[in-house]
Amino acid sequence: MAFSGLSKRIRELPKSNFPAIIKMAEEDKSIISLGIGEPDFPAPKKVKAALKNAVDKNFTHYSPTGGRHELQEAIAKKLKKENKIRVEDIHSQIIATSGSSEAIMMAIMGIVDVGEELLVPNPGFLTYRPTVELIDAVPVSYNLHSEDGFQIHVEEIKKLCTPKTQGIIVNTPSNPTGTVLKKKVLEELADLAIQKNIIIISDEAYEHLVYDNAKHLSMGSLNGMEEHVLSLFSFSKSYAMPGFRLGYAVGPERLVKAMQQFHLYTTLSPNTMSQIAGITALSKCGKDIEKMRNEYNKRRKILIKGIQEIDGLEIEVAPEGAFYLFPKITNGMSSEQASKALIQKAKVLTAPGNEFGTQGEGFLRMSYATALPKIKEAIERMKKNFH
Amino acid sequence: MAFSGLSKRIRELPKSNFPAIIKMAEEDKSIISLGIGEPDFPAPKKVKAALKNAVDKNFTHYSPTGGRHELQEAIAKKLKKENKIRVEDIHSQIIATSGSSEAIMMAIMGIVDVGEELLVPNPGFLTYRPTVELIDAVPVSYNLHSEDGFQIHVEEIKKLCTPKTQGIIVNTPSNPTGTVLKKKVLEELADLAIQKNIIIISDEAYEHLVYDNAKHLSMGSLNGMEEHVLSLFSFSKSYAMPGFRLGYAVGPERLVKAMQQFHLYTTLSPNTMSQIAGITALSKCGKDIEKMRNEYNKRRKILIKGIQEIDGLEIEVAPEGAFYLFPKITNGMSSEQASKALIQKAKVLTAPGNEFGTQGEGFLRMSYATALPKIKEAIERMKKNFH
Repeated sequence: MAFSGLSKRIRELPKSNFPAIIKMAEEDKSIISLGIGEPDFPAPKKVKAALKNAVDKNFTHYSPTGGRHELQEAIAKKLKKENKIRVEDIHSQIIATSGSSEAIMMAIMGIVDVGEELLVPNPGFLTYRPTVELIDAVPVSYNLHSEDGFQIHVEEIKKLCTPKTQGIIVNTPSNPTGTVLKKKVLEELADLAIQKNIIIISDEAYEHLVYDNAKHLSMGSLNGMEEHVLSLFSFSKSYAMPGFRLGYAVGPERLVKAMQQFHLYTTLSPNTMSQIAGITALSKCGKDIEKMRNEYNKRRKILIKGIQEIDGLEIEVAPEGAFYLFPKITNGMSSEQASKALIQKAKVLTAPGNEFGTQGEGFLRMSYATALPKIKEAIERMKKNFH
Repeated sequence: MAFSGLSKRIRELPKSNFPAIIKMAEEDKSIISLGIGEPDFPAPKKVKAALKNAVDKNFTHYSPTGGRHELQEAIAKKLKKENKIRVEDIHSQIIATSGSSEAIMMAIMGIVDVGEELLVPNPGFLTYRPTVELIDAVPVSYNLHSEDGFQIHVEEIKKLCTPKTQGIIVNTPSNPTGTVLKKKVLEELADLAIQKNIIIISDEAYEHLVYDNAKHLSMGSLNGMEEHVLSLFSFSKSYAMPGFRLGYAVGPERLVKAMQQFHLYTTLSPNTMSQIAGITALSKCGKDIEKMRNEYNKRRKILIKGIQEIDGLEIEVAPEGAFYLFPKITNGMSSEQASKALIQKAKVLTAPGNEFGTQGEGFLRMSYATALPKIKEAIERMKKNFH
């Protein structure tokens, strides 16, 4: 067959409504957006200064495919201190990536072959499933349930494992549900990974954004998991650096070294100046993170309370992480209908839950990465105009 | 089969000697490197100032998946003026990428399915072939010959086309040979693409680096090619901005729009601040480019003359583009042997030609992106110590 214009893989990409949603919010300035998963804070001052200093010092050249050594070393220190993940060979087990989205793609390509299976959460972050499909592998959904706050049922996962299963994507704190997975669940998942000899891709992009009594636990810190977890981290969320396109992965040497080699065929490395700024973010911005987290927590509490007063929306278990709530729609509307009604009548932008998988149908995702006065106004509008 | 540790696709990546070569040059400071394809110049001053200004103005947030609109518009102006490529719908036909290496990967994934074929130059840039293999498609080499300065023989390409052929990668000016393809060759390729209904991926990363009477011609400017060329450009080479990780692609709307959607699953967008700096590079740095080009040309002439005086190396046709020479080894050594001899005896680093494909065996790649005194010293060392 001659050139058909596009590969099947790209023709069959899911039709996301997100770009259209973002466009609506941009065009009508009266709309309050709870739709986007992006910090409203600018990058920390120290990070900005570090970036400018890097430019002045002409760090405008290529970097190694694993990332700059001094960044890898700063990452190893942070992993040890904050995540209790120990790294034996820093330069072989850590790779800096162009955002953790690149790490997700490289991890999937590094683990799964054509026709093989990867377990993905449903509802779950919207790139997991299509990325698996893009390389002609098979994403298999594991369902999450609102009744118990979208915790993972490891027994259900066990039943989904087949001889073709290569791994499981685990995301805590979760986008879109805000769920922080419990220690017991993560330990059961670890046992399963060892028993089945598969790998966990642990997406921890929201690691610092946990509230009240919740604690973030990295699966890479659990006993016996050295060969069974690839952990992914991001500077985009808790460090408020999405425009820097910087993330990283840590895991078994054989996998990470292969990803470093593979990096030649994707982006070579993340932006060199961003990498230098990333060192400052990791080592000197604890207070900035704390300040933003406190602010998110304030907003979270107010938004939870507000939603409880809106007819037609319900939160069964209040989520303790990320910057999302995932309320259930109780007035009979579908996710699309509810989202459209809120845009048109209340001028509040939310993400339809079905964007995140079939199990998200009947829910909305609301982000509280928006200034408090706007959140308060959005609540008032939704109270009056959700029908 | 349970988790084997790594996907077959990643286990079978070619073993590149490049990282080892780079390491050698780093460890022994007495080695002069003609091995690396990176400008020795820092980024232009105006570009650096623009980047710092972008940071000050808090351009630290996400960008659209096609790239920032103001960057797309600056790219369209540049394409019209410098490349004679006309773009009907700027925001749908242009995508900014994290270096042109990301554009290469996205283009290949966007065009070729499992089992389908893509024609790639041999010798050619070292990512083409593995990137096609990574997605379980089939790279088919078209051979280039030193006798006629590595021009493409379109008759030979015609014979390689099968019903599975989806496209052809064309790279001018060429890495590794430095060849600037002739207008006649490009016109014949254009006719072939239309006749066979396939697409040209035109990698023009070295577009500005042509010398003496050579002219760079973009296939996207040829009549009737609107639907048959995806043109790739980079800021890494002629703008001396490799650390910014910024490139772009322009082509048929259906393909570029799909790539924009696909960008969600790779890196979302290039670094936001780099994009702002890129606007300055495109619109205000003509003199910087001219200055660097003149400097490269000086070095090129001296290196060509020097090589002609080295026993065991020969240049059949002097290349007129990029910043590479690709001399033939005439003393019976293989590429590997010659490269090792030059490192050990002359302390000069070159890239073995076979890194760029089987047709590169018996050649060396030498980069003149190195200061003139070093090039002169390297020539003297090679004259005395190549045996």
